[in-house]
Amino acid sequence: MTWTLARRAERLNPSTIREILKITERPGIISLAGGLPSADTFPVAAMREATERVLRDTPHEALQYAASEGYAPLREWVAAEVSAMGIDAGPDQVLITTGSQQGLDLVGKLLIDPGSRVAVESPTYLGALQAFAPYEPALVAIDGDDEGPLPEALAAAEGARFLYLLPNYQNPTGRCLSAGRRRAIAARAAQLGLPVVEDNPYGDLWFDTPPPPPVSAAMGGLAVYLGSFSKVLAPGLRLGYVVAPRATYPKLLQAKQAADLHTPGFNQRVVHEVIKDGFLRTHVPTIRARYLARRDAMRTALEQHLSGLAEWRTPQGGMFFWLGLQPGIDAAALLPAAVEAGVAFVPGATFFPQGGHDNTLRLSFVTVPPACIEQGVAALARVIRGATR
Amino acid sequence: MTWTLARRAERLNPSTIREILKITERPGIISLAGGLPSADTFPVAAMREATERVLRDTPHEALQYAASEGYAPLREWVAAEVSAMGIDAGPDQVLITTGSQQGLDLVGKLLIDPGSRVAVESPTYLGALQAFAPYEPALVAIDGDDEGPLPEALAAAEGARFLYLLPNYQNPTGRCLSAGRRRAIAARAAQLGLPVVEDNPYGDLWFDTPPPPPVSAAMGGLAVYLGSFSKVLAPGLRLGYVVAPRATYPKLLQAKQAADLHTPGFNQRVVHEVIKDGFLRTHVPTIRARYLARRDAMRTALEQHLSGLAEWRTPQGGMFFWLGLQPGIDAAALLPAAVEAGVAFVPGATFFPQGGHDNTLRLSFVTVPPACIEQGVAALARVIRGATR
Repeated sequence: MTWTLARRAERLNPSTIREILKITERPGIISLAGGLPSADTFPVAAMREATERVLRDTPHEALQYAASEGYAPLREWVAAEVSAMGIDAGPDQVLITTGSQQGLDLVGKLLIDPGSRVAVESPTYLGALQAFAPYEPALVAIDGDDEGPLPEALAAAEGARFLYLLPNYQNPTGRCLSAGRRRAIAARAAQLGLPVVEDNPYGDLWFDTPPPPPVSAAMGGLAVYLGSFSKVLAPGLRLGYVVAPRATYPKLLQAKQAADLHTPGFNQRVVHEVIKDGFLRTHVPTIRARYLARRDAMRTALEQHLSGLAEWRTPQGGMFFWLGLQPGIDAAALLPAAVEAGVAFVPGATFFPQGGHDNTLRLSFVTVPPACIEQGVAALARVIRGATR
Repeated sequence: MTWTLARRAERLNPSTIREILKITERPGIISLAGGLPSADTFPVAAMREATERVLRDTPHEALQYAASEGYAPLREWVAAEVSAMGIDAGPDQVLITTGSQQGLDLVGKLLIDPGSRVAVESPTYLGALQAFAPYEPALVAIDGDDEGPLPEALAAAEGARFLYLLPNYQNPTGRCLSAGRRRAIAARAAQLGLPVVEDNPYGDLWFDTPPPPPVSAAMGGLAVYLGSFSKVLAPGLRLGYVVAPRATYPKLLQAKQAADLHTPGFNQRVVHEVIKDGFLRTHVPTIRARYLARRDAMRTALEQHLSGLAEWRTPQGGMFFWLGLQPGIDAAALLPAAVEAGVAFVPGATFFPQGGHDNTLRLSFVTVPPACIEQGVAALARVIRGATR
């Protein structure tokens, strides 16, 4: 038996979160751990009608091999969407991907050599760290505050292949960069010649006011922008997109071809059929309203049960609360007792590229209904109180 | 503007075939170039019923994030299928992939370091070469004859990370390895400690008798086996699978998570709904009958128009005829004249890892109907005759 694995395989590891999610599938556990959208928001009726139309009108095209770039009308839709946000891009710059996770993998494949420096927020999205890891980057954690990464900290990223940013309702912290911070980061990155890879899965999930324009809009072509239909329609379709400068698009496309030839044409046509006449303009507000109610339910529960035991800021959109416990308390060590008490969360250390910050944790407020949120937070408070004594 | 690409990006190049396919999309061109299944074989009615059932009975599960391993009932189906072929594997060894192209990418990611030797047939499937290329292998072309790779030639592959094999109706040559050749290759590979990566997209498309058991069945765990629903249902669903030994499965799964989290659950459930009660047992024979008629149409046309101008063997399954023109004739140089005359093909040199063999070409007999096949081959013959004079 002589399997020899590539060196990069050492960087492949089980996802802490996926392991936790397996535990939380047990009946009776209130999971505040997963980043799962609320399934009640999935537009099942619209999906049913769209699949019927696609299989009636263009079945052979939908089921045949298709262009690696993606379905042309969907690419046009994406180009219009991002242009409206201030990103100057044509449909020829849009690559449809198998979820935005694939966009992260392709970006890593194209831009990271072993040892290349890649700048990331700290904490940041775990899935991005996992997508980049097999390409063996040297991660540079950029210092930040409650507003996001500090422009003056970007000097540490000079010469890095890119800066990975999640400006809107970040996973895991829920924080949204202000317009001023975005401008400052874009200016400093442009000055340093540092490309930005901007990931925006949550931007549509704002509560009171939409987020400021994307950082990419101010980068004059030195940015790759990633978007997704997972949070505004349904993640099980695995549909995302990358908007890339014309200089890098052809190689990105070739990496896409090599990776899976193309994203399922059937899924692309169904989604285009659902959204083409403005469906999201009425659908997304219903998601926002539902998530706002749950955000409020969690805020109320946190105030009631965790005041003095933890610190948090109220997120203005997205899916997550980020909690800081008292120093010295290890959230990961509390998890077994929490699961025993019927509630699950994700320990925060896993989101830090250099680890540490053991006293942090992430709570999702969108997966379970408000009554369960209250019950889950109450159970969590009992466990934390036990550890704090 | 300071994009620095990874070194592996040098290995990413436009697909010759995809470039040819773009030309052949022009109206009026009879394309014998593409490896596209005949769209008439797509089971549209069964797909429609299955999507209706999935969106009626389990819409939230089908549209939610799902396990990276794949949909459990589909994994069980695959395990039963490959076990019936003699591969001893449980559902826990099955990974559902976004087309079998993704299986090739994940295998490359897991097993190839820059400079690693990887043994391939010569010629071989271009998509595999493209999937492996960004991992920077040193390809070792294994000598073969009309029966496939020569067991005695495997000595050249000693120490290679794996041997990539397409035993059934290979793309591009159409040849099928005999049972004896399979046994000899498996024995020699096992002796050398050389893992086999076996790709089987075409095995169900036999005409008179099914192909012999897979090479993997005789490798005792030193093999990864790849299968696909693209040729027996529809490629636009992008659904394939990898069957891996338990020793390598966890890392393969982690690579899959990093690449796209999971293959669309919706597609997996729809396909399982279509096939679970034995649909393929009645459906695949209709594909075989259709492809056999087209194979016969092309054989007749070749005999009528190209006798003395080219050599070929009649494929016993699959989708392709492989032609050898007279030495000194460059098939690629004929392509523009052929397109001018209204027919397209793929020059054979592109399938050889070390190039050369300029006098070969690949013709697909499944994409266009018999009348067009005759017309296309006649046009091709005029062009070849012009070059042979």
